[in-house]
Amino acid sequence: MNRFKTKTVRLIGAFSLALFLLAPVLGLHADEGMFLLNQLPMERLQALGFQLTPEQIYRPGGGGLSDAVVMVDGGTGAFVSPSGLILTNHHVAFAAIQMNSSPEHNYIKEGFWAKTRQEELPAPGYECRITLSFQDITPRVLHGIKKKWTGLKRYKAIEKRIKEIEEKESDEKAGIEAKVVSMYDGMYYYLFKYLRIKDVRLVYAPPEAIGQYGGDTDNWMWPRHAGDFSFMRAYVGPDGKPADYSPDNVPFHSKTYLPISTAGVKEGDFMFIMGYPGRTMRYRTSYSVRYNQKISYPYRIQLFKEMIQLLNRESEKDSSLKIKFASMEMMLSNVLKNNEGMLEGLKKSHLLERKLAMEKQLTEFLNRNPELQKAYGGVLPSIGKLYAQQEKWYQRETLLRFMAFGSRMYGFASTIYQWSVEKKKPNLERDPRFLDRNIPQIKQRMKIAQRDLHPPTDAKMLELFLLKLANLPEDQQVQPVVEILKRYPGKTKAEAVHEYVQEVYSGTKLADLDTRLKMMDMSHEELMAQNDPLIALAAKLSPVQKQIQDWEQTFAGQLSVLRPKFIEALTRWKKANLYPDANRTIRFTYGTVKGYEPRDAVIYKYITTLRGVLEKDTGKEPFNCPPKLRQLEENRDFGRYEDPLLRDVPVDFLGTTDITGGNSGSPVMNAKGEYIGIAFDGNYESMTSDWQFDPRLTRTISVDARYILFILDKFSGAKNILEELTVH
Amino acid sequence: MNRFKTKTVRLIGAFSLALFLLAPVLGLHADEGMFLLNQLPMERLQALGFQLTPEQIYRPGGGGLSDAVVMVDGGTGAFVSPSGLILTNHHVAFAAIQMNSSPEHNYIKEGFWAKTRQEELPAPGYECRITLSFQDITPRVLHGIKKKWTGLKRYKAIEKRIKEIEEKESDEKAGIEAKVVSMYDGMYYYLFKYLRIKDVRLVYAPPEAIGQYGGDTDNWMWPRHAGDFSFMRAYVGPDGKPADYSPDNVPFHSKTYLPISTAGVKEGDFMFIMGYPGRTMRYRTSYSVRYNQKISYPYRIQLFKEMIQLLNRESEKDSSLKIKFASMEMMLSNVLKNNEGMLEGLKKSHLLERKLAMEKQLTEFLNRNPELQKAYGGVLPSIGKLYAQQEKWYQRETLLRFMAFGSRMYGFASTIYQWSVEKKKPNLERDPRFLDRNIPQIKQRMKIAQRDLHPPTDAKMLELFLLKLANLPEDQQVQPVVEILKRYPGKTKAEAVHEYVQEVYSGTKLADLDTRLKMMDMSHEELMAQNDPLIALAAKLSPVQKQIQDWEQTFAGQLSVLRPKFIEALTRWKKANLYPDANRTIRFTYGTVKGYEPRDAVIYKYITTLRGVLEKDTGKEPFNCPPKLRQLEENRDFGRYEDPLLRDVPVDFLGTTDITGGNSGSPVMNAKGEYIGIAFDGNYESMTSDWQFDPRLTRTISVDARYILFILDKFSGAKNILEELTVH
Repeated sequence: MNRFKTKTVRLIGAFSLALFLLAPVLGLHADEGMFLLNQLPMERLQALGFQLTPEQIYRPGGGGLSDAVVMVDGGTGAFVSPSGLILTNHHVAFAAIQMNSSPEHNYIKEGFWAKTRQEELPAPGYECRITLSFQDITPRVLHGIKKKWTGLKRYKAIEKRIKEIEEKESDEKAGIEAKVVSMYDGMYYYLFKYLRIKDVRLVYAPPEAIGQYGGDTDNWMWPRHAGDFSFMRAYVGPDGKPADYSPDNVPFHSKTYLPISTAGVKEGDFMFIMGYPGRTMRYRTSYSVRYNQKISYPYRIQLFKEMIQLLNRESEKDSSLKIKFASMEMMLSNVLKNNEGMLEGLKKSHLLERKLAMEKQLTEFLNRNPELQKAYGGVLPSIGKLYAQQEKWYQRETLLRFMAFGSRMYGFASTIYQWSVEKKKPNLERDPRFLDRNIPQIKQRMKIAQRDLHPPTDAKMLELFLLKLANLPEDQQVQPVVEILKRYPGKTKAEAVHEYVQEVYSGTKLADLDTRLKMMDMSHEELMAQNDPLIALAAKLSPVQKQIQDWEQTFAGQLSVLRPKFIEALTRWKKANLYPDANRTIRFTYGTVKGYEPRDAVIYKYITTLRGVLEKDTGKEPFNCPPKLRQLEENRDFGRYEDPLLRDVPVDFLGTTDITGGNSGSPVMNAKGEYIGIAFDGNYESMTSDWQFDPRLTRTISVDARYILFILDKFSGAKNILEELTVH
Repeated sequence: MNRFKTKTVRLIGAFSLALFLLAPVLGLHADEGMFLLNQLPMERLQALGFQLTPEQIYRPGGGGLSDAVVMVDGGTGAFVSPSGLILTNHHVAFAAIQMNSSPEHNYIKEGFWAKTRQEELPAPGYECRITLSFQDITPRVLHGIKKKWTGLKRYKAIEKRIKEIEEKESDEKAGIEAKVVSMYDGMYYYLFKYLRIKDVRLVYAPPEAIGQYGGDTDNWMWPRHAGDFSFMRAYVGPDGKPADYSPDNVPFHSKTYLPISTAGVKEGDFMFIMGYPGRTMRYRTSYSVRYNQKISYPYRIQLFKEMIQLLNRESEKDSSLKIKFASMEMMLSNVLKNNEGMLEGLKKSHLLERKLAMEKQLTEFLNRNPELQKAYGGVLPSIGKLYAQQEKWYQRETLLRFMAFGSRMYGFASTIYQWSVEKKKPNLERDPRFLDRNIPQIKQRMKIAQRDLHPPTDAKMLELFLLKLANLPEDQQVQPVVEILKRYPGKTKAEAVHEYVQEVYSGTKLADLDTRLKMMDMSHEELMAQNDPLIALAAKLSPVQKQIQDWEQTFAGQLSVLRPKFIEALTRWKKANLYPDANRTIRFTYGTVKGYEPRDAVIYKYITTLRGVLEKDTGKEPFNCPPKLRQLEENRDFGRYEDPLLRDVPVDFLGTTDITGGNSGSPVMNAKGEYIGIAFDGNYESMTSDWQFDPRLTRTISVDARYILFILDKFSGAKNILEELTVH
């Protein structure tokens, strides 16, 4: 249920330059595509029965349905009332539910329902962004960037230009945030403006046994029976402008909001989705596929398994740790399952072989025309060389990146140390993570992390990573780690690392939140005078981090020239109107309600039922159907939510829309633009859809709006929420 | 793939009196039923399109299609040429393939194909039985059995009468075997006469990667892609009469045989099956269901798991043992999966609750009529009391039964010892296992078992069981085991048992085949003079075995009066024409080719394809599709075996016919009586079909005849076999 929330990508892949880099393929399919809101394929849409105009979807000055579609945390949500009520996924709101839970009030287990505004719970760290406008500003970004600049120089220059524009176009007081993103792998640059709302609260969540029914077992699977939805609310200051949390804040007035429809779906119906997909790689070369398939995924899979094993070993000894580790373990399991499925899917679909064949044809095409050959002939070999170098950096880069995630205390130390260095520079010359505007959020995250911190386990995680670094091949050794080992002569590497980590954790004060926050405000010199051993480790590893980052930016800088050229070559070869890869900006995707055939002799229907929920019930997590839900089915107490064909309450349904991580919580609408469901996942068979869209197998899984209303009405009796909604 | 072969039942359940005992329920469904060949529901059959007359199926003097349908080992087969060629399942022929395999000629892996008669391989232990005739002989069996005799007395009297009749009606020289079996739980007794052919040879087997494609993973599963078929041949002496194996033997002349059809199947087609189903329990009471669900299945599941673990531990240490243990492990896994599925299925289908409700209604019906109340009112309470007693015997009985299976050497010792006692009695007064006619087979089995014997593991098995016996609750203790423990004062039970078993195995000579065979021929006194410690153990446990057997026969004897009364009561209540429970006699079942819906939103199609075989291919067992098969699919080299609708070669298909263990290898025929497939399994969802038939879920899985021909022709190029078959 988490695949379609980008949180994991954001946290774990925070340093991943791959976020900014893309690459092209061909072979577009009917219904494939995550379109920018100003490039809707209207002819095709109308042929399928779409009844709206482009302006009803998006109007630059405001007024389109898109005004109701917002970013929430790592996912998407939609305003469903004029008072800022947001309908999103249970798994998008999960951290908010978790942070408000305690053994006395276990909202994960029991669900949560605010009967009045006063009971709505703060969700620190949650933000909501509304897209105000977007425009192509490529000339402004590339002005003065010389063609001959490649690699690090080009990267740095563009990075600086983007920071300047973002700084200039933002208006923190008004809550306006400007973001510049590249489209088509660096071919174009767009400026997006957002209204950034910082006070978001939890309003309603069903019990986990509904919201995540089937848990990890059913994650990404069809047939699915999860009621993966929750309600939150956006709050602003009394002046109507975004403000930090305060009890005095008032609900945001959302002019545009979506009424909920009980019209329902049937196979073949047109549907469309708006949301914020995070990242796709539809235009990558064979080099990128090979690198991911042979190097990156296998290594990460192994690493995540070891991290999960470590957490399990510790929580087996002390079961009270299970709650502390829940969030990290969920993320790891999720990424692990994703990576495993991705690897299996890439192999099974023979994407590498197909890319190679396509590139061979492209090369032959270019060779037939000397002018084209001259312009584009060197692109693929150059990309190939870059990937060959990247392979050598891979293990170091991966270990250092995930070390800061696995050992949160090392992560704090690294952030504190880097900030102490960066803060000496003028704002715009800093690493973008340390722009002034980002510092409050860093502190906020440190506060939130405190709750789940468990230093002994944290130490074991650091040990795991340091030992892996120590065991790297000779030519990839990390010097500071080699030096640490030297301090323990006569010991094995494992013993040395163990002793070292013991010493570090008995000396560090970073487990204490106040200490960390104080350190964030210290000058570099004051910080170093603390002689904290974890800060010392971060300082030692800092040059290595820098070295890796330089390489990453060189890699990125060179690709930002090569990849657009590759796309150009493709468009010269085949005339296709390509949509840009997903990059967390608002997109439109359309398709039809439809089942699929996952394998020989098996047909999956397009929709599941409440009877199916009971069928899976074992009484034990994750299939512990609440008795009240069973009662409702057995009494056939379905109210107006029964589907006339199914003669039962519908639960989840499938469609051919094209979504990915970040789309979690996206509103699903019918041809008239009515809210008929909420997207929350993709199916296992389309695991590699970030790389390729397969119309036979790629499906979106959504909760049927009728199930949402049924749960609110018949299961919870949540009258106040039902009354706030507009239900047709 | 083994569920529908009764071998496991025969070996493991050899002592199980439950084989002779049955009981009734109600609620017959359309297409349910395993009919005796003289009770075909012709009206219903004709309505479904059946084009044959009852005489074309079965004619008492011979001449019906049933003449071609034979028992083979624990399964069924069909003559498919006039020269005794038998088409049966790969898993029915498996032991024959295994016993002929060696590291040089691994016929399991490579498959086997005799290009000439001379190359056909002997399969010692395999027999083939042709049903010659059957008739109701109830008066002859029950003549002189007094109504007041119940329990042990009644059991013994009937047993003796049956032995006398069987002895009288058999004609060993002519190869005629007579068998008396009860129908409707003791209501009627039938005499069956068989021609018993003792020389059966292996002719053709596909590689395991075709014959058991999917292995244990796919066992009982749909969609299925196994080509579970093999060819064997029946041989007789030069005089045409059954004879032991001899190189001079000649193929049996099978006057009736089945031509193979390429007509194929499509959804909704009529189909019927003839074969030898082993055992069903469709008429059991709630007491029997409760006993099995709460006591018997859970205990056996635990026991089999421990036995499998033991084998795995040993073969992990020494991988050469894997082949030795293969057969036992396959049986255990198979019974384990069956028992687990059965338990899950019983719970899920709430059979116990439904039986209780039905019995409550029956009781109310009886109470409304004083005459009926008097005749039948006491039946259910009496059955209840018997089961309450049986529960107390259960653990001892189970442990002693499976000890002789797990530790083959203990099994030999027990058989040798009992035979030394029984041989003193006149033939007809012996335990039926030790009738003169059965002794050669006992010796034969000892010879075959030699190959897989591994005394150190055998010792560990004995230790496992003795320790379990030692740990029984106080009131269920087995005296001889208590005495053994006393010999090791100061030791824990585990230590004592371990030491004892070590002593036994260092002293026994039973690992030696010649010794065992010699002991079989010794008098009781000579045997005891050998002072073999395993024989001594068998002697000590013998009185306990006797005690248990007496109880079993008392239980059986009482039920053989009560259960027919229960069926009578049911027929008085509801007027239904009941078919008798399966008892390994030849039966007819009909239905239609049909898929099913296993769970919410999932539809299973009625047929699988060769494309599906490739789809599952991982290159690793059990999904290691042979490259040549892949080639054939990729080249679409389908010959005349392509299905016009599927545009591919069909592999396996589903039907609603009612089969069970023993039906493995049964011919599947269409409305015209053409051979269109071979039955080899049931689906997981119908695991409890021995207890109840559910038309929504109960399905037979068969290999499509076109796949058999395709493999022979395109994969193997087995011209000689194709030419011997009659293909329409």
